[in-house]
Amino acid sequence: MTGLHIRPAETKDAPSIWRVIGPTIRAGETYALDADMSEAAALAYWLGDDRETFVAEEDGAIVGTYYLRANQAGGGRHICNCGYMTSAAATGRGVARAMCAHSLEQAARRGFLAMQFNFVVGSNTRAVALWKSFGFQIVGTLPQAFHHPTLGFVDALVMFRTLEASKAAPRIERSNVVSMAVGSSRPLPIAGRRLIEPN
Amino acid sequence: MTGLHIRPAETKDAPSIWRVIGPTIRAGETYALDADMSEAAALAYWLGDDRETFVAEEDGAIVGTYYLRANQAGGGRHICNCGYMTSAAATGRGVARAMCAHSLEQAARRGFLAMQFNFVVGSNTRAVALWKSFGFQIVGTLPQAFHHPTLGFVDALVMFRTLEASKAAPRIERSNVVSMAVGSSRPLPIAGRRLIEPN
Repeated sequence: MTGLHIRPAETKDAPSIWRVIGPTIRAGETYALDADMSEAAALAYWLGDDRETFVAEEDGAIVGTYYLRANQAGGGRHICNCGYMTSAAATGRGVARAMCAHSLEQAARRGFLAMQFNFVVGSNTRAVALWKSFGFQIVGTLPQAFHHPTLGFVDALVMFRTLEASKAAPRIERSNVVSMAVGSSRPLPIAGRRLIEPN
Repeated sequence: MTGLHIRPAETKDAPSIWRVIGPTIRAGETYALDADMSEAAALAYWLGDDRETFVAEEDGAIVGTYYLRANQAGGGRHICNCGYMTSAAATGRGVARAMCAHSLEQAARRGFLAMQFNFVVGSNTRAVALWKSFGFQIVGTLPQAFHHPTLGFVDALVMFRTLEASKAAPRIERSNVVSMAVGSSRPLPIAGRRLIEPN
C-alpha cells in the first residue's frame, strides 16, 4: 500500500480512531471487548496510559490504528502485546500488514524481546494467516474461549514471536527525558532499557 | 486443613491482605507484577472493581487470599481467571488447595464455563502440580516469558479447565443485593447469569 503513513496517535485523533474501532467493537467478532462499550470507554482502553497508540493515515484519513504495550509487568515486562484494527473501507489493502511491520520495529526499538497476542479469535482466519506470515507461532489454544455472535463458541489462539534487537542506535530526545525518568517505575519497557526511537 | 474459613474480603481486611501479598510481590518469583509496586497499587489491583476477592482465615488470622474475575470481556467473558497467594508462614498446609477448590465452586455458581490461568511461572512447580491435581491442563507454553530473579528466563504456562455447572440453588443474601445491582453493569459474569453464592 502506497501513501500510508503510520505515526503516534494524538488526542485530536480520538474521533477518527473511534470511527475505526467502533464498528469492529460493535460487531463483537474479533476482539474480546464488550460490544456495547461506550465510545469513551473504548477510547480510554485503546489510548490507555499503559500503552502507546499509533494511527495509519492515507491521504489525511485515518484508516487503521494499533497499540503497543508490555503484556505483563514485573518479570514478564520484556514481552509486548499489540492490538490492531483497520477501517472496514480499507480492509484487504495491506493496512494491518503495514501496522504489524511497524509495530515489530517499534517493539524491538523499545527493547522488547518478544511479542505475544493473547487472544486471537480462531475464526478470524485472515488475521491468523497474517500473523503467521510475520513469523508468529501458535503457542496456545484456548478451547472455545470466544463466543462468536454467529458462529457460537470458537477457539482462541495465543500467538508468539521473538524480536530481533533493533540495529538503530537509540537516541534520547529532549521531550522524552522526563518520561524516561518516570518510566523506570512503569511496567512498559525493560527497566533501564527504555530506548527512544530515532523517528 | 481444619479451621480454615474462606469468605469475601472486606475493606477492613486490606492491611492483612497486604501482609499476605506484599512479600510474594516483593519476591517477584511467581507473579508478573512489579516487585516494587506500592502497597496502595497492589491493593488496588488485588481488590479491583473488576474482580471479587476472598480471604482464607484461620483462627481469626488471614493466611491466604484470592481473586476471581472474568478473564476477558465480550465474547470471552464466559471464562474466568483467578490469582491466589498464601502467607509464607502458612505455605504447604493446604491453604492454596482450599482456595482453589473454593474458587472453582464460586466460579461455577457465577455461571462461568471454564477457568484459565494466563501466566503460571514454570519454575513454580508446586503451583503447576497443584493446578494439575485440580484438572487444569497446560494449553499453552510461553517461551522464556518470565524473568525469574535468580533462575533467569523461564517459561510461563497457560492452564485451563472447564467447570461443571453448580447444582446448588442460588440464594440471594441481603448483604449481596447491593453488589448484585451494581454488578449488572460490570463485565465479570455472563450477562444475566450473575448468581449469588449460598455461602
